[in-house]
Amino acid sequence: MRRGLQARLPARETATPLRLGEFELIAKYFRPLTRGEPNTFALSDDAAFIEPAPDSAIIATTDTIIAGVHFFETDPPDLVARKLLRVNLSDIAAMGAKPTTYLLAAAFPENVEEEWIAAFVDGLDKDQREFGIYLSGGDTAATTGPAVFTVTAFGDVPKDAALLRSGARPGDTIFVSGSIGDAALGLLVARGELSLDPKNAEFLLSRYRLPQPRISLGIQLRGIANAAIDVSDGLVADLGHICETSGVAAQLEWPRVPLSTAAREALKSHPALRDAILGGGDDYELLFTAPENAESRVMAAAKAAKVTVTAVGGIMAGSGISIRGDAGQKIEIPSGGYRHFRGR
Amino acid sequence: MRRGLQARLPARETATPLRLGEFELIAKYFRPLTRGEPNTFALSDDAAFIEPAPDSAIIATTDTIIAGVHFFETDPPDLVARKLLRVNLSDIAAMGAKPTTYLLAAAFPENVEEEWIAAFVDGLDKDQREFGIYLSGGDTAATTGPAVFTVTAFGDVPKDAALLRSGARPGDTIFVSGSIGDAALGLLVARGELSLDPKNAEFLLSRYRLPQPRISLGIQLRGIANAAIDVSDGLVADLGHICETSGVAAQLEWPRVPLSTAAREALKSHPALRDAILGGGDDYELLFTAPENAESRVMAAAKAAKVTVTAVGGIMAGSGISIRGDAGQKIEIPSGGYRHFRGR
Repeated sequence: MRRGLQARLPARETATPLRLGEFELIAKYFRPLTRGEPNTFALSDDAAFIEPAPDSAIIATTDTIIAGVHFFETDPPDLVARKLLRVNLSDIAAMGAKPTTYLLAAAFPENVEEEWIAAFVDGLDKDQREFGIYLSGGDTAATTGPAVFTVTAFGDVPKDAALLRSGARPGDTIFVSGSIGDAALGLLVARGELSLDPKNAEFLLSRYRLPQPRISLGIQLRGIANAAIDVSDGLVADLGHICETSGVAAQLEWPRVPLSTAAREALKSHPALRDAILGGGDDYELLFTAPENAESRVMAAAKAAKVTVTAVGGIMAGSGISIRGDAGQKIEIPSGGYRHFRGR
Repeated sequence: MRRGLQARLPARETATPLRLGEFELIAKYFRPLTRGEPNTFALSDDAAFIEPAPDSAIIATTDTIIAGVHFFETDPPDLVARKLLRVNLSDIAAMGAKPTTYLLAAAFPENVEEEWIAAFVDGLDKDQREFGIYLSGGDTAATTGPAVFTVTAFGDVPKDAALLRSGARPGDTIFVSGSIGDAALGLLVARGELSLDPKNAEFLLSRYRLPQPRISLGIQLRGIANAAIDVSDGLVADLGHICETSGVAAQLEWPRVPLSTAAREALKSHPALRDAILGGGDDYELLFTAPENAESRVMAAAKAAKVTVTAVGGIMAGSGISIRGDAGQKIEIPSGGYRHFRGR
């Protein structure tokens, strides 16, 4: 009962090296991230206004990252923050929407140091500028466990132009942006389970740590793509999501899957990495389908968005995914993608 | 590299008693919470549409609760879920908005049992029905630490009718709904630090565990209240937020602060509990100001919302809060409210 009642639980009486209180933390570090937008009330109200652009609808998505699960506790805090934003922005991109603003719920470990928070906020600030977004609100707490960060991101899209997972049709071509498997290999490098020359290792690591949400491409694909998703669970798993939601089957051509030079070299030395490339997640490239006759429009969209796009297979009637290997043989589906609570 | 790459961190290879995978968990427990609303895409897309009612603006708020910090790990899971929703809905209420939908980011401990999740979802379902809302999207993960749940809640309000913290004016009367301090005393009961007769103890405990967001009252107060906030940090602290944001001072009359019978009896035995009542948080009542001549409209609003409202002081020019005690003496401000990272 010292200093009034702590109207929560006693764990919070422990000392913390952080010399700023919750409100000072918000004022010093998080308020500037609102960039003076009046709808945010400078984080000093109970909620924020979220306004769509004229003739647009608002879309919202939320993603959590946890220290020790989604990132290493020793990762640079600015990169943690940027990845946190980007995994959310990637969902916005997959809907063909333009990101606008976000809410942040941050549970910092109670022994967090101010320098860590400052660097984390620097990362947010950097990506806010890169993607033209601002912070609208949030919540800050101290936890006895690992850091947990949840972002809710918002985007605008003309409602009938949103890209959905459910629109794939038999005859569609399957496309993917950028290169696939880099993040999965980057994680192996981070874990010390894959040794490569420093240049390739660094490239793959950076792809794992700092994905590039394909926002311009998503916007360009409005009215062209029939279905879209971002590759977060893994190429095969996410293609599976499109197939399930659309009620179709897919054939994936492994020889056409676009690989970076680093991934190609790693694969040459370790052919077993193919499963990691097909099954691993976290690439945050766009995987989408479009009618066969739309290929030139797809390529024009890719050019406008300054990103490569590669046809990797086709959609058929039926269900399930088959993968064709280098010699035309059937490849067994890697039990794909990361799942929490993997179950039986 | 067994079963493809786990494109996250190795901690996730540990066994879990939960026999459902992540996607099965979503399908079995969370998808039904979307209640067939098409904008949710049945949780099977990358994001959800959030649509305002005609002529309304969308407001959004986010709040996190952490096991061991905001609730006890032994609390009934349905009550944890309902409190999670309600602390967010209370922010919606404080803006004078009508709640519509929410996103849930749930990080369950990796050894969570399915029964716990089922009961948690039952609690969400119950309060969804009570407040007329549905689940629009979310994220499910397993954490090595305590459970962490983040809800982002949405509401509709005619934009120029939203209640803000910043509108308090000298001459305003300060009102509060319901009774104050019950949650703070309920927490003391939960901790075993306050012994009362079973009936009073149970009442206070229920007020701590299951707050009542004052949604109808918030809506009724549109166009009447000049400023509003929900009492989450504590009566004095939240009045302080109004004063700071509005640039005004406040005088609080302790003898007028509405107390439940249980709180009154507890206070009679332990006068030192006054600080807990003034400083403790988590009541989730509405604290608001209105011009003196609006008192009859305030009381009509309270009647329409079926909640008691009590005048507890007045707003003045200046800054800071003074509290007048039973005998007219000045009461020292209890260092009010819970703060994470309390600092110096």
